[in-house]
Amino acid sequence: MDSPVVVVSNRGPITFEVTPSGERRHRRGVGGLVTALSGALRSRGGVWIAAAISEEDRRVAAESGTVDADLGDARVAVRFVSVEEDIYHAYYDEFSNRVLWFVHHYLWDPPRTPTFADAQADAWDAYADVNRRFAEATAQTAAEGGVALVQDYHLALVPQLLRKMRPDLAIGHFWHIPFAQSDYLGLLPDPWSHAMLDGMLGADILGFQTDRWAQNFLACVRSVSGLRARDRTITIGDRRTKANVYPIGVDPDHLTEIAAGPAVKRTRAELKRWLGDRKLVLRVDRTELSKNIPRGLKAFELVLERRPELRGNVVHLALLQPSRRSVPEYREYIEHCTREAERINARFGPEAIRLEISDDFPRSLAAYSLYDVLVVNPVFDGMNLVAREGPCLNRRGGVLVLSRNAGAAVELAPAALVVNPVDVDETASAILDALEMPDAERQERARRLRRLARGRPPARWLDAQLRDLARARRLLAGRFGEALEERDEGAG
Amino acid sequence: MDSPVVVVSNRGPITFEVTPSGERRHRRGVGGLVTALSGALRSRGGVWIAAAISEEDRRVAAESGTVDADLGDARVAVRFVSVEEDIYHAYYDEFSNRVLWFVHHYLWDPPRTPTFADAQADAWDAYADVNRRFAEATAQTAAEGGVALVQDYHLALVPQLLRKMRPDLAIGHFWHIPFAQSDYLGLLPDPWSHAMLDGMLGADILGFQTDRWAQNFLACVRSVSGLRARDRTITIGDRRTKANVYPIGVDPDHLTEIAAGPAVKRTRAELKRWLGDRKLVLRVDRTELSKNIPRGLKAFELVLERRPELRGNVVHLALLQPSRRSVPEYREYIEHCTREAERINARFGPEAIRLEISDDFPRSLAAYSLYDVLVVNPVFDGMNLVAREGPCLNRRGGVLVLSRNAGAAVELAPAALVVNPVDVDETASAILDALEMPDAERQERARRLRRLARGRPPARWLDAQLRDLARARRLLAGRFGEALEERDEGAG
Repeated sequence: MDSPVVVVSNRGPITFEVTPSGERRHRRGVGGLVTALSGALRSRGGVWIAAAISEEDRRVAAESGTVDADLGDARVAVRFVSVEEDIYHAYYDEFSNRVLWFVHHYLWDPPRTPTFADAQADAWDAYADVNRRFAEATAQTAAEGGVALVQDYHLALVPQLLRKMRPDLAIGHFWHIPFAQSDYLGLLPDPWSHAMLDGMLGADILGFQTDRWAQNFLACVRSVSGLRARDRTITIGDRRTKANVYPIGVDPDHLTEIAAGPAVKRTRAELKRWLGDRKLVLRVDRTELSKNIPRGLKAFELVLERRPELRGNVVHLALLQPSRRSVPEYREYIEHCTREAERINARFGPEAIRLEISDDFPRSLAAYSLYDVLVVNPVFDGMNLVAREGPCLNRRGGVLVLSRNAGAAVELAPAALVVNPVDVDETASAILDALEMPDAERQERARRLRRLARGRPPARWLDAQLRDLARARRLLAGRFGEALEERDEGAG
Repeated sequence: MDSPVVVVSNRGPITFEVTPSGERRHRRGVGGLVTALSGALRSRGGVWIAAAISEEDRRVAAESGTVDADLGDARVAVRFVSVEEDIYHAYYDEFSNRVLWFVHHYLWDPPRTPTFADAQADAWDAYADVNRRFAEATAQTAAEGGVALVQDYHLALVPQLLRKMRPDLAIGHFWHIPFAQSDYLGLLPDPWSHAMLDGMLGADILGFQTDRWAQNFLACVRSVSGLRARDRTITIGDRRTKANVYPIGVDPDHLTEIAAGPAVKRTRAELKRWLGDRKLVLRVDRTELSKNIPRGLKAFELVLERRPELRGNVVHLALLQPSRRSVPEYREYIEHCTREAERINARFGPEAIRLEISDDFPRSLAAYSLYDVLVVNPVFDGMNLVAREGPCLNRRGGVLVLSRNAGAAVELAPAALVVNPVDVDETASAILDALEMPDAERQERARRLRRLARGRPPARWLDAQLRDLARARRLLAGRFGEALEERDEGAG
């Protein structure tokens, strides 16, 4: 029988709110990841452990240990880890997002930032504290001999803490973002980076989006501890941690289903009228410093500068979901993007670039079907799902211009135009090439791209991890001299 | 017999100028490196090839192929490579210093900089052009079977170009600065980074300041080409390039001699009067983005914040030599440093920090003898000679606070207080620890530090390279089936 699962992530599959009429209701998180992880919980049994994000989540947490939540397509048991608002802010905004996200995406300006002093030391303490609370909640909740699936950089200390509390568990930790190289990681104070590497090494299996990030992790371990990986495996005493690659993708059927809904259809019709017979260069991103929005705008400016005949005949639509507005760097970034778009429009016409800042997933899906060129040019990105969503839904033989520093480039490169994201000149040339590509080549590339983009549904991502964790767990059981019959289970 | 030498560097040992009365005269470059390289030229014969920097250098270059220059302690033959002013600017300021220096010191702010477009493409062309001219001048000048010592990041393409023109030469290339890791180097357009790696691989021996930078180089080669180093050696066909470590230091006797001169003595007396019985926290740096001046000031601010009793009893003297004022980032940086010092002085008294921006080497030497704490906290630094000069001349049992990202930390760490340069909190604690250290420990540390700091005179640095190049050259001669008697030379 498959072991029961505990999913451990900062953000859970649902969050509660109170309606104006005073009723409690919950909203479901979007994305294929929630569907895949919920599916595993449903079929194997288990609990999803997540931070109480809203005021109402905290109330739910105070009332009951575990709540049973209806996700529409599944029911899952959720246990909230309740954290005081100021500690949550320090753990989430200040440490996870302003320190860890920045270091692993190379977002600092080293002559000036970061500057670690008291505020960051407090944020680190909060991070360690919240990680401990997550580990404790998991230790209390997980079934004997179960599997813990710890998610992402917010919870890097959990695997080792949990290992000590519950040596019977098979622990997986998936790292969704890039992993920085040792010179850059070394900008962190040693106690932080060492604790995080040690924390991650508490997992049996570490998952990364690409081999590049896995190798960076292993090289950092070696640089800090001298431990060398063999066959991607770090051995410490009688324990092993293996760094594997599990690229995550999108669920194309799920996407197609949503895209067939009335909201998307309506928006598509509206966008089509607006477009007329102009060509569409699209970007869809969170307003995130790693997404490289200004260089994308600048590259489009170069396109119009070099090809006057394109002015008025091609439009750049940038659909930007606001992100992390509580972080000052992000507010400045949005302003900077807006000013850039205005500057370029002042040069080339009021609607050369249409920059929309709003959280409208149906609108993104509608736009996906219509683009001629999709620009996905992050400076660094663990995977990037836009690069997969777009090709799954596009109907115009659209061309993907893709950063080589997005994890998605590993698989999509053969059918995309791959660029160095900081090379605006190269990015502009790629957009031009895409716009001027002969139709037969466009269609052929789009077909290949669609096939590649559909190839990594989250269920497969999850199954591969669970299979490897089952194997690790059998080894574990063997070491503990337990339940020999478990060793006879098929290798999955 | 020792092979004749050609030294190839952007800046030569002398530069010519015209006096107000119309006479031509030359100024000698400072530093132990000029002395060491000139010494090799004198004892072995050979020529120093360098860019014509001044107007008068260009005139000299036009008049004669090689000029014989008196350096005071040596005579050397200098051949100027003449480059038009705009091309020199593009090669030197725009490419070498704004692109290569930035990438290898991690000085960019990736969400915003760099942005490669036409201007940088032109700068790259100029870089390639000037490198070609250097290679040609060297090929025309070097004696048969000689040794070429190519210096630094300005001339990364020279080794391979020269190898093709003059396969008889033994070619060394010394890289004086850090070498970035592959994620960061990968921000450069591929044609540039690939050409530079290939250019460097034209050398028989590549020299780096520390093993860390050598390993970064080898890992970049592997990441780009798949070639793995064995025993630090990359083999391509029948050719080999070995990446060795030759830490460069200072010539303590030379330093002591200058420090005994009247200019230094006068300044020392003046500084002593100014200091009175206050303690001195010193920094000596170029106004260079990698030197981390603002975080040093901020750390000093934290010291005064935490220990009110130190206010008025300790002063921070920052002696800053202006650098690269033609580069906008550097002008902004100086302004930023000045504002920071003013802000802190507004808080803690008008002379808590004394920031002097001037080019006054004797003043630095005088200050070295007087410091209680020397702060050397670069974000990244190939070696850093201040960390060696200071301890060679200090007479007060001064403590060195040293960045772990300076190459000098490899050897000096045991006797210094080593800090993470971006960790202002840790830097402040180290300065405090240094100020409050018991006298016996201070003196003991200072003694060890002095011994370590004196241990790498440039002559030794050069001899080690020439010895290894002689060995490489014998292998080369063997391969070419030449002069068997050369193989019988001692291994040096």
